[in-house]
Amino acid sequence: MTQLTYRATGVDPTRAERSLAQVRERIARTKTPEVIGDIGAFGGLFASPGKDRVLVATTDGVGTKLEVARLLDRHEVVGTDLVHHCVNDALAMGAEPLFFLDYFSTSRIDPAVFARVVGAMADACAAHGCALLGGETAEMPGMYGPGAYDLAGFLVGAVARDRVLRPDSVRVGDACIGLLSSGLHTNGYTLARAIAAAIAGAQGRDVSDALTTPHPGLDGRSLGDALLAPHTSYLAQFRALRASVRVRSLAHLTGGGWEGNLPRALPAGLGAIVDRGAWEVPPIFRVLAELGSVPEVNQWDTWNMGIGLVVVVPASDVAAALRAVPGAVSIGRVESVSGARRVRWS
Amino acid sequence: MTQLTYRATGVDPTRAERSLAQVRERIARTKTPEVIGDIGAFGGLFASPGKDRVLVATTDGVGTKLEVARLLDRHEVVGTDLVHHCVNDALAMGAEPLFFLDYFSTSRIDPAVFARVVGAMADACAAHGCALLGGETAEMPGMYGPGAYDLAGFLVGAVARDRVLRPDSVRVGDACIGLLSSGLHTNGYTLARAIAAAIAGAQGRDVSDALTTPHPGLDGRSLGDALLAPHTSYLAQFRALRASVRVRSLAHLTGGGWEGNLPRALPAGLGAIVDRGAWEVPPIFRVLAELGSVPEVNQWDTWNMGIGLVVVVPASDVAAALRAVPGAVSIGRVESVSGARRVRWS
Repeated sequence: MTQLTYRATGVDPTRAERSLAQVRERIARTKTPEVIGDIGAFGGLFASPGKDRVLVATTDGVGTKLEVARLLDRHEVVGTDLVHHCVNDALAMGAEPLFFLDYFSTSRIDPAVFARVVGAMADACAAHGCALLGGETAEMPGMYGPGAYDLAGFLVGAVARDRVLRPDSVRVGDACIGLLSSGLHTNGYTLARAIAAAIAGAQGRDVSDALTTPHPGLDGRSLGDALLAPHTSYLAQFRALRASVRVRSLAHLTGGGWEGNLPRALPAGLGAIVDRGAWEVPPIFRVLAELGSVPEVNQWDTWNMGIGLVVVVPASDVAAALRAVPGAVSIGRVESVSGARRVRWS
Repeated sequence: MTQLTYRATGVDPTRAERSLAQVRERIARTKTPEVIGDIGAFGGLFASPGKDRVLVATTDGVGTKLEVARLLDRHEVVGTDLVHHCVNDALAMGAEPLFFLDYFSTSRIDPAVFARVVGAMADACAAHGCALLGGETAEMPGMYGPGAYDLAGFLVGAVARDRVLRPDSVRVGDACIGLLSSGLHTNGYTLARAIAAAIAGAQGRDVSDALTTPHPGLDGRSLGDALLAPHTSYLAQFRALRASVRVRSLAHLTGGGWEGNLPRALPAGLGAIVDRGAWEVPPIFRVLAELGSVPEVNQWDTWNMGIGLVVVVPASDVAAALRAVPGAVSIGRVESVSGARRVRWS
């Protein structure tokens, strides 16, 4: 048998390091005063907050938005998305971000793509005062299709013990405030992609073509452009709200849409009645639903439909909340429910 | 066009939840007094250690050991591996584990496989006093081959500020103590699998067959059995050493083998001279090297060759270290180096 080495099997242990070298400076710019030492050790070191604080840990991926980004050569967006998704999950517990780590997995590292994805993550971390404390780059020949990669993000945040958001503080009659999304964020892409593929098939075009053609229902933007809008981070709005109103709880509308997420911000036995006319559902959702003949219940159980974060506040704080966050919308109220579904529409 | 729903595209948002329900009790048993509330929120809550402590964060995968485990229907081992790998990386900074999160990604969740993998993770966390604080389960049709899945783990540990292990405390003349590994742990599997595939091809057998046949060089065990030995956790030995000797630094021998990891525990300008005759290289490495005609330098640059953790201690502490950890071996010493390679063999 001819000699076998790791390199001959398609794994080059130095490729990850060389890829990382390209973004080291951008990663270094995420360093905060709490970071101890440098990246490259077996683990990242971070000064512990005091005992008056609670750590909040979240992990997320970006789903098959990865495939849209790859198809259209727009890799930066998924790096940004991963950080923003994790940040919003931390906000939902009342916490602000401290540090982030990423996992990048592929069959063969493409250093240019890696630098674009991880560079965008680093920039998003820096913009949030969040240290990019470490990461793992896995090269697994045969595991992924050519050019495909998967991403996972891990974020740790902190919040003062008495400021943790607790769904059990929510009362009947509390108000729901909606913060607008930029589009699908990072959820419901498998459905969106199936719709694009079906359209392309029906028209005898390839999917990239269908995704890049300007669409009249999107003010001349293409489906691909609309699908690759970055996941909105709500850190600034969160701070403005916490500074001015009593925030009871937050729901980050991700996988599972409204019914899958809004109840997570409510105590057992309570639900929400939401006025779907209170905001304009962005065109991308209408276009996708029409192209795919997606039943309305499935649209709302899959996509955020234009609202990325729902904030529950006492009814008397609504006016102050709307003043604190331009563009926020009063969308409904908390009520008692019976039955399996806890989000009703008015 | 016929109606499209998420379920019709192959994603069932309830499948992840139903899979998780099977292991909820085992996850609950990982709960430590610092955990606040329950799993299922947008983020896991954990009481912060005091300001006298440093947080240590690590992230890891298990590489293509995943493929061997899947081929031989031994999914538990990769769950255990993921936790142990992360724990050892935390130890390398001097820290003990606090909490763990996992990312499980696949094209279509198999609830039975999910429960075996995540159940094993939970048990490994419980055995280490480490809370399984959260996780993300991603279902991405088309991303992975049938039955394939990827895993990433994320662990946060803590250590007293004055007990952080620092490579720059290492001095010329310090001793290297080796702790035995159980086999490849989680590194070098792409090479091992290429060897198994080549052997199977040459013999006209399929790879599972080649992996499950008892091998005379492995005391009658099969290659597959040897390859699926779990990654050793060194928490107990770490505690014994820290209680009895001055530990300067630790190297966890993972991807990149000796040259890729031991220097990470040493200051710039220093290297180690290691006596490869000080321990017996386990048969699995000899068998793989022979079957694949792997050049010696590649063996040691890829695999741990029988030592999973190298502990650097003052020379005068060697006897105490060997007493504290039965089976530990004095394998070499720290010396000045010039040139690119920092590990030399005696």
